[in-house]
Amino acid sequence: MSHIELRCTDCGAAHEADVRTLICRLCHAPLEVRYSGASTLPRAGLAGLWSLGAPALLHDAGSIITMGEGQTPVVRLGALGRRLGHTALFAKLEFQSPSGSFKDRGATVLMSVLKEAGVAEVVEDSSGNAGASIAAYAAKAGIVAHIFAPASAPAAKIQQIRVYGAQVHLVDGPREAATQAAIAYVAERGLAYASHNLSPFFLEGTKTFAYEIQADARGLFPRHVVIPVGNGSLLIGMWKGFLELQARGVLREVPHLHAVQALAVQPIVAAVHGQTWSPRAGARTIAGGIAVGQPPRLRQAVRAIRGTHGSAVAVSDEAILRWQVALAREEGIYAEPTSAAAFAGLEALVRQGVIGRDEPVLLPVTGMGLKDAAPL
Amino acid sequence: MSHIELRCTDCGAAHEADVRTLICRLCHAPLEVRYSGASTLPRAGLAGLWSLGAPALLHDAGSIITMGEGQTPVVRLGALGRRLGHTALFAKLEFQSPSGSFKDRGATVLMSVLKEAGVAEVVEDSSGNAGASIAAYAAKAGIVAHIFAPASAPAAKIQQIRVYGAQVHLVDGPREAATQAAIAYVAERGLAYASHNLSPFFLEGTKTFAYEIQADARGLFPRHVVIPVGNGSLLIGMWKGFLELQARGVLREVPHLHAVQALAVQPIVAAVHGQTWSPRAGARTIAGGIAVGQPPRLRQAVRAIRGTHGSAVAVSDEAILRWQVALAREEGIYAEPTSAAAFAGLEALVRQGVIGRDEPVLLPVTGMGLKDAAPL
Repeated sequence: MSHIELRCTDCGAAHEADVRTLICRLCHAPLEVRYSGASTLPRAGLAGLWSLGAPALLHDAGSIITMGEGQTPVVRLGALGRRLGHTALFAKLEFQSPSGSFKDRGATVLMSVLKEAGVAEVVEDSSGNAGASIAAYAAKAGIVAHIFAPASAPAAKIQQIRVYGAQVHLVDGPREAATQAAIAYVAERGLAYASHNLSPFFLEGTKTFAYEIQADARGLFPRHVVIPVGNGSLLIGMWKGFLELQARGVLREVPHLHAVQALAVQPIVAAVHGQTWSPRAGARTIAGGIAVGQPPRLRQAVRAIRGTHGSAVAVSDEAILRWQVALAREEGIYAEPTSAAAFAGLEALVRQGVIGRDEPVLLPVTGMGLKDAAPL
Repeated sequence: MSHIELRCTDCGAAHEADVRTLICRLCHAPLEVRYSGASTLPRAGLAGLWSLGAPALLHDAGSIITMGEGQTPVVRLGALGRRLGHTALFAKLEFQSPSGSFKDRGATVLMSVLKEAGVAEVVEDSSGNAGASIAAYAAKAGIVAHIFAPASAPAAKIQQIRVYGAQVHLVDGPREAATQAAIAYVAERGLAYASHNLSPFFLEGTKTFAYEIQADARGLFPRHVVIPVGNGSLLIGMWKGFLELQARGVLREVPHLHAVQALAVQPIVAAVHGQTWSPRAGARTIAGGIAVGQPPRLRQAVRAIRGTHGSAVAVSDEAILRWQVALAREEGIYAEPTSAAAFAGLEALVRQGVIGRDEPVLLPVTGMGLKDAAPL
């Protein structure tokens, strides 16, 4: 991979691109991909997000492990807009994806890079959706996957991971305990760590969200994007995508990126407001996909929000549940609670006047309702 | 709807188009839509299947109730092809749809037509997927939906229908009992029957499957399509679509359409082979989506199969389960058992030499695995 390098997101140190290099050797911060030449290979005649052009992360477009993920539809939400007194509300249905969540954007790129590098066995930790996604693409790639997940993860997600043939390792305790167990297993077995939180290649997949928004001439270009944020792989990925589009001169203004977390677990909201926050033992939320107490890319997430003059809000489980039901009953969209959190955040931001009532807003619906416990 | 009429599929009698006319007044057979002029409105700038042009069923493209359904990806199945000794095996991932199944193709058209006709409350019966789909689009349209389903339907599907706000009516006994209860309720309450099995408008949605296959220049055009068939809404819809394309001169040869049913419930397989078959009390299959003992469009399904020189096979639950797991483990595709049945059928058809080992085959993956009980 001589045409790319991995750059530290904190100190800027450059590292040779390698699928096993996940943090900066100098300061231990996460890395991101920088391109020395063109950032894409020629279009390979593929569908979905790869139709935008394969990232030049790969030497051979034949290495691509794809199931047509991406190119998700954008839908106008008339009824919910009226409920909020908002005139230009749009959702991008990210759950219309092979494994049922937006994580497939990252997994298709990460697993393609790992496959081309000759990796045969990987380890990942996840609250469920990223694990299912990595397991699906590992199956397609013929790679053995070990998925570490909290024992409290929804049964449907754990079942799904198992059906793809991955080894599931359930870990008691909070989300972070699964990460620690995965890291220990990687060290003990000498395996590749396909971490969706740390791998810079995963973000090269999620950034295609921004490219699709730009390419989609049908909708109004959003002034605001409101995103449920745990580890921030969608937030940080789309930020990188928008900045690349701006650098190329095809995008004048990056939308304001707003992060939504649950009241019980809100490290990024606290950091954006300059407050200290530490995980409380036993703190729970129904939005399990964003219940991440110590996100490794926290500083990057904060920069994405501040750099786009966005904001960060925390919402109650009661509001999340209310919006999950409203989305289904008024718009026919069955989202998981984590995804509904963005709508609870939107409500707060419109009420506070942060988002004007006629400014186009887009929300990704990140995961399908069938993946988690039903709200009724 | 003066530009279309409803034609009896048996006696050919013409009926004025009306959303409440579901069977022929003369011979009681099901109906289909015939166009007197152009079959599509101008493209309305919409995504998904509507980007092909809205069917001229509607007076106003503004009536369309859509969530970007359709335009599902086609994926090459390399590993399963090798397992079968077949070189050109493709799947169309129909479950990448708002409610997680191909039924959304039919529901978007049917509910748009009902909405434009001013219908405010509908009744439907379903083994689960069509019910979820009708419930989702009814929610988006602001229409009240009553869904009659067998009490034995998977919990996930029933929950999903409820979350969309539909009234669920569970009916003991076989799939047909839910149909009878729905018909009685329609008569008693004077409501519109949004039957995905009877409504000719539903087929105008599922026929877009054929149009997409034709428009998709990336894949090889299939010589065979292998389809799980219960009521046959996908089989009959795509047949109509292929015939329309042929009549327009853009398609030379319609693919052979092969129907797959479960051993326990195989009225269409029997009819294709000229055998009599009647439902056995208590006959069960894990492929609940195709467990339909008395499909109202049976004669049309048989004509679609015979007319395309296709075939019909019945498969065991053991084979369905084996293929469900193989699809997930080798291709990263988590399908529900009903969808996996098509692959079990493919195996039989390749073994029998009905499908040659280098003839391009396409299989729709009709419903997501999360909708039914997990195979492990």
